[in-house]
Amino acid sequence: MKPHATTGPVHIIGSGLLGASVGLALRALEVEVTLEDISPAALAVAQQVGAGRHQSNPNPTMVVVAVPPDVTALVVAQSLKTYPKAVVTDLASVKYGIGQQLANSGLDLSNYVGSHPMAGKEQTGPAAAAADLFTGRPWVITAASQANQPAVLAVRDLATDLGASVLYMDPMAHDQAVALVSHLPQVVASLVAARLAPAPAGALDLAGQGLRDVTRIAASNPNLWSAILAANGPSVAELLRSLAVDLERAIEALELARQPEHLGQALVMLTDLIASGNQGASRIPGKHGGAQRAFDQVDVLVPDRVGALARLFALLEEAQVNLEDLRLEHAAGQAVGRATLSVPEGKGAGLASALEGHGWSVL
Amino acid sequence: MKPHATTGPVHIIGSGLLGASVGLALRALEVEVTLEDISPAALAVAQQVGAGRHQSNPNPTMVVVAVPPDVTALVVAQSLKTYPKAVVTDLASVKYGIGQQLANSGLDLSNYVGSHPMAGKEQTGPAAAAADLFTGRPWVITAASQANQPAVLAVRDLATDLGASVLYMDPMAHDQAVALVSHLPQVVASLVAARLAPAPAGALDLAGQGLRDVTRIAASNPNLWSAILAANGPSVAELLRSLAVDLERAIEALELARQPEHLGQALVMLTDLIASGNQGASRIPGKHGGAQRAFDQVDVLVPDRVGALARLFALLEEAQVNLEDLRLEHAAGQAVGRATLSVPEGKGAGLASALEGHGWSVL
Repeated sequence: MKPHATTGPVHIIGSGLLGASVGLALRALEVEVTLEDISPAALAVAQQVGAGRHQSNPNPTMVVVAVPPDVTALVVAQSLKTYPKAVVTDLASVKYGIGQQLANSGLDLSNYVGSHPMAGKEQTGPAAAAADLFTGRPWVITAASQANQPAVLAVRDLATDLGASVLYMDPMAHDQAVALVSHLPQVVASLVAARLAPAPAGALDLAGQGLRDVTRIAASNPNLWSAILAANGPSVAELLRSLAVDLERAIEALELARQPEHLGQALVMLTDLIASGNQGASRIPGKHGGAQRAFDQVDVLVPDRVGALARLFALLEEAQVNLEDLRLEHAAGQAVGRATLSVPEGKGAGLASALEGHGWSVL
Repeated sequence: MKPHATTGPVHIIGSGLLGASVGLALRALEVEVTLEDISPAALAVAQQVGAGRHQSNPNPTMVVVAVPPDVTALVVAQSLKTYPKAVVTDLASVKYGIGQQLANSGLDLSNYVGSHPMAGKEQTGPAAAAADLFTGRPWVITAASQANQPAVLAVRDLATDLGASVLYMDPMAHDQAVALVSHLPQVVASLVAARLAPAPAGALDLAGQGLRDVTRIAASNPNLWSAILAANGPSVAELLRSLAVDLERAIEALELARQPEHLGQALVMLTDLIASGNQGASRIPGKHGGAQRAFDQVDVLVPDRVGALARLFALLEEAQVNLEDLRLEHAAGQAVGRATLSVPEGKGAGLASALEGHGWSVL
């Protein structure tokens, strides 16, 4: 059992994916966990997977509210009244509106600390819960000025005990940040994927990795995401409006490109559009949260056979080269794939020779 | 040396990435290749990397035109006049406009077969050329009705000799297809990435895999892409206009969501948006060009150390499980990553147990 600071008992309200995962992780640390949910079925599953016991808890030291965003403020308010000595946190993915509702409630908010673990899965519900769900994920704490220090530290301890990396943000700054890094990409991926629905089948045979990457998250759950987007409406709408302006400009440039006398102007507008994207993309932090690091990339053909990758990685180990990232790509109709290996800068050329020396086709 | 049907000599006009890669691949098959380019520097590099000899060629059996899209029709027309016995193909990524210009030229087009190898790299120019560039990639042949059968078969042979998979499409259907699967995702990835440029640094610390996937291709070359988009203006503009309509609807839904009396309507609109994306995304063919296949996914924690992946894949080999796909993900500030292994349906549970039995943390 790992050393941990959360002593419990912890009472979890809402036993879906997030609530049950918090329960599982705390039970693994032998912290006492009690569960509550308006759905008897969700409760039964959460209890079955080992996320805690379904019973009342007169003296929790902490209450974790893991219910949908539209009822979070209400359940937090009730919890502050029912458990006046407990620290109360919620896990909702949008924070400003909840903070405003609570501020307007007239309640003493010194024990309330809003938070948002940036963890999830494609599946929902307690059956998908996992004790490791938060391992290595950011967990944002959005404490208001009324929150007392011990309460903030207790939530920091919870996040850290569960393996997450804690970040502090103002609720509004948090909502704007998730609108940008999570909600905007979701809307846009869905809009692009929606264009594929009426396309002729032959067109989709040309689909490559670019389309797959842009639309991967378009497979997300519609009910979950409509609630998240609605809860963060103002921040998401602002970003979509500014994107719409650039989109109109792109359309205008494409219209101009049809007229030979305006082609030069159109090309400048389109070049600016792609260059602005270059600039923005370069700001995404690299691995381990640091600044973007330079890697060497080595492309190699990999036969689609059991063990091919094992042999490839055994060679990497032999060459003492750490793999920073890996992309596998398969083309239509081929039983061979391309692996793109990202390795520390300066290691690419040596690795490529070593691979070729062992009979691999380096591209 | 592999068996091949292209006998040559082949004359390549334009010795950039694509032209030089065709040359390299043909030289590997011992086909005679001559090169021509208006840039002496590009020619020198192409010759240096072994893509062919810079000299005139009085009797090529095939001419490959690999020049920018805006001069392709002109160079094809000149080639048809200069080499009346040769089959002439071009590699431009947009086909309809070129076909129209040639049809209006009054030339005999029986020896002309337009084509488009769907291959590329982030780097451009002959220094980045590779004989394997086309291996396993789709190569679309967009022959007009005037093209004679031997000419079409010669281009099919070229594509097949270079390891590509041949597809036939009408030029307009081709342009609409690449607008959908390639040009639309590029514009949208650039527009999303452009929103990141003015964002506060803290916001980008929350960036996860979704944002990275949606914006990966935003790092593309602005000059190359502005020319491609301009050449396919009408098809791309049509898709962007239909995306703009859905975008306005999303903004309207987010505005409605702020008014409690319209929240229900807003949620229905947003749910429809995400559901349409689900439907479209499900149409993207899976690996090997077939219908999407069902995979089991196993998530496992991987320490960021030399050899960790080699040990993981050695276990897969031992368990005789073929890896269909792999995603590596690292969270901010953590020296541990998550690997998502896609394995054939039915193999997931057994693999997960085997991995756990060897001390791996399956999530």
